[in-house]
Amino acid sequence: MINLDDSILTTVPTLFSVLNWFGIVVFAISGALAASRKEMDVIGFIIFANITAIGGGTVRDMMLGLTPVFWVSQTTYIVVASLVGLLVFFTAHIPQSRFTLLLWADAIGISTFAVLGSQIALDANIAPISAIFMAIITASFGGLIRDVLADDQTILLRQEIYLTAIFIGSLTYVGMIELQLDKNLAAISGFLICLIIRGLALKYNWYFPGYKSRPGRKY
Amino acid sequence: MINLDDSILTTVPTLFSVLNWFGIVVFAISGALAASRKEMDVIGFIIFANITAIGGGTVRDMMLGLTPVFWVSQTTYIVVASLVGLLVFFTAHIPQSRFTLLLWADAIGISTFAVLGSQIALDANIAPISAIFMAIITASFGGLIRDVLADDQTILLRQEIYLTAIFIGSLTYVGMIELQLDKNLAAISGFLICLIIRGLALKYNWYFPGYKSRPGRKY
Amino acid sequence: MINLDDSILTTVPTLFSVLNWFGIVVFAISGALAASRKEMDVIGFIIFANITAIGGGTVRDMMLGLTPVFWVSQTTYIVVASLVGLLVFFTAHIPQSRFTLLLWADAIGISTFAVLGSQIALDANIAPISAIFMAIITASFGGLIRDVLADDQTILLRQEIYLTAIFIGSLTYVGMIELQLDKNLAAISGFLICLIIRGLALKYNWYFPGYKSRPGRKY
Repeated sequence: MINLDDSILTTVPTLFSVLNWFGIVVFAISGALAASRKEMDVIGFIIFANITAIGGGTVRDMMLGLTPVFWVSQTTYIVVASLVGLLVFFTAHIPQSRFTLLLWADAIGISTFAVLGSQIALDANIAPISAIFMAIITASFGGLIRDVLADDQTILLRQEIYLTAIFIGSLTYVGMIELQLDKNLAAISGFLICLIIRGLALKYNWYFPGYKSRPGRKY
Repeated sequence: MINLDDSILTTVPTLFSVLNWFGIVVFAISGALAASRKEMDVIGFIIFANITAIGGGTVRDMMLGLTPVFWVSQTTYIVVASLVGLLVFFTAHIPQSRFTLLLWADAIGISTFAVLGSQIALDANIAPISAIFMAIITASFGGLIRDVLADDQTILLRQEIYLTAIFIGSLTYVGMIELQLDKNLAAISGFLICLIIRGLALKYNWYFPGYKSRPGRKY
Repeated sequence: MINLDDSILTTVPTLFSVLNWFGIVVFAISGALAASRKEMDVIGFIIFANITAIGGGTVRDMMLGLTPVFWVSQTTYIVVASLVGLLVFFTAHIPQSRFTLLLWADAIGISTFAVLGSQIALDANIAPISAIFMAIITASFGGLIRDVLADDQTILLRQEIYLTAIFIGSLTYVGMIELQLDKNLAAISGFLICLIIRGLALKYNWYFPGYKSRPGRKY
């Protein structure tokens, strides 16, 4: 007899393990593409792939004191990100011509890290609101460091619905865990809500109204 | 019978606790104002308020190994900074029109953190000179990260007497502690000296002479 | 009777101890020169000297959890870097007119840190590939933070053979250690290979081909 709960318990971690690596690869590609826009050499591609893919988790681990940071022992992360960087150096025209596809892949990436980042933070026994902050850091700081080092405009300065999607996805997951709902259900809910919000924003070009200084006021 | 010493012992910590929260709020406002200048959305306001208010202490804690960093357990910091960010989004014209007032409030903020940052560092049993460096990091790195992420000119590139005031304030506090003078007297002295230097610089538009490349020299 | 091995064992650590301080001073000078280009005040010189000289090792220590970071107890680092910053404020025209010399001194600096960074990482018992990443971080992040804060173009955006030299130098050292070859031989080999690659790149103006977007492709 198949026990449904057990089956989910096995499926969902596997699903998120796959999504985790999918997210790492997508972030590494977006880092390497920043390198291609700046016409860097192959080492630049590899470094930007790594910074983008593992930067957010590295900052999270340093803040939580989970040191040495995760990729020091789990070297598969830097191996995979480096290979992606190398590969993109020779084939950057392919992801470039699929930029819209990449935005969607990135949406899956941040949705994954919104959940996994929250999970790692909660596992460190920290307050729920801190866990949500850590999830936002996990999912966004790699891209932030990439943009600062590449001298690009950071996501903070664009009015896209990006961090908000991560925030609500993480809030959903952490909230459901706090309410002692099923962990797998919480993970899938947080993931889907982040993905739907970011997806709708991409599809319909939604953005939050930015602050406008009042007309006639001298600043 | 009132014991004067005890009374000071109670008053000064309370004073600095109030000053601490005053400083956090002022730093959060200055972060949110950077967001307003860049016409960010509400999430941008909240994130910049947090980065500016808690960034310096976060870097200090990571360097000292005081992890998880302070705001992970003391969540009031991120709650207060987030509320300030939210509030400023709807009322940014008020602090904008009070920019001079804000500079003075910021002066109180850095004077507070010059002392409190030194204190936290000394409590971690580190060398006095390292404690002074940590105080400078505590009081200034939040603003530095804010400026880098907002693509603004950092305080390092402006020739204001800002870091110098923090340095001398912290030097005063740490020096008096090393000389085993009264801790409360040291705290008030460090605070006032930093505030007076920064205040005079603001009032009389003082600045240090910057380095000038010699005329006629090609570089 | 002089035991040759022992003699090397004593000479090489001494050599690298000298090279270490040479590298710190060179990095501090390059930081102070960034401050001079931006016409900062004396505090700016001191801060940029420190950021450049100790920034890379600080990030490495935070990632490895070797906290408090090295300069907190070994205060000679911040004292030396500060004195260099102070000195350069009054004499910046000297290193400026010796810019080519400084590039060569910097080459010696990164060659030293490629080896010492690897060594510190391996001492923390981490995987060889992670140790190589840590060496690259040790040797380059100080300069990266300097460039970001000074609003200069980072080394990542210039197509010089710089990080590649660090990478190959560290790879040589870590590889020889893994093959259980003599530690001193490994140190000297890694140092020389990094120095030769960087030196040839400087002398013959070598650079890696950067990525070129295909003509006719719209991006």
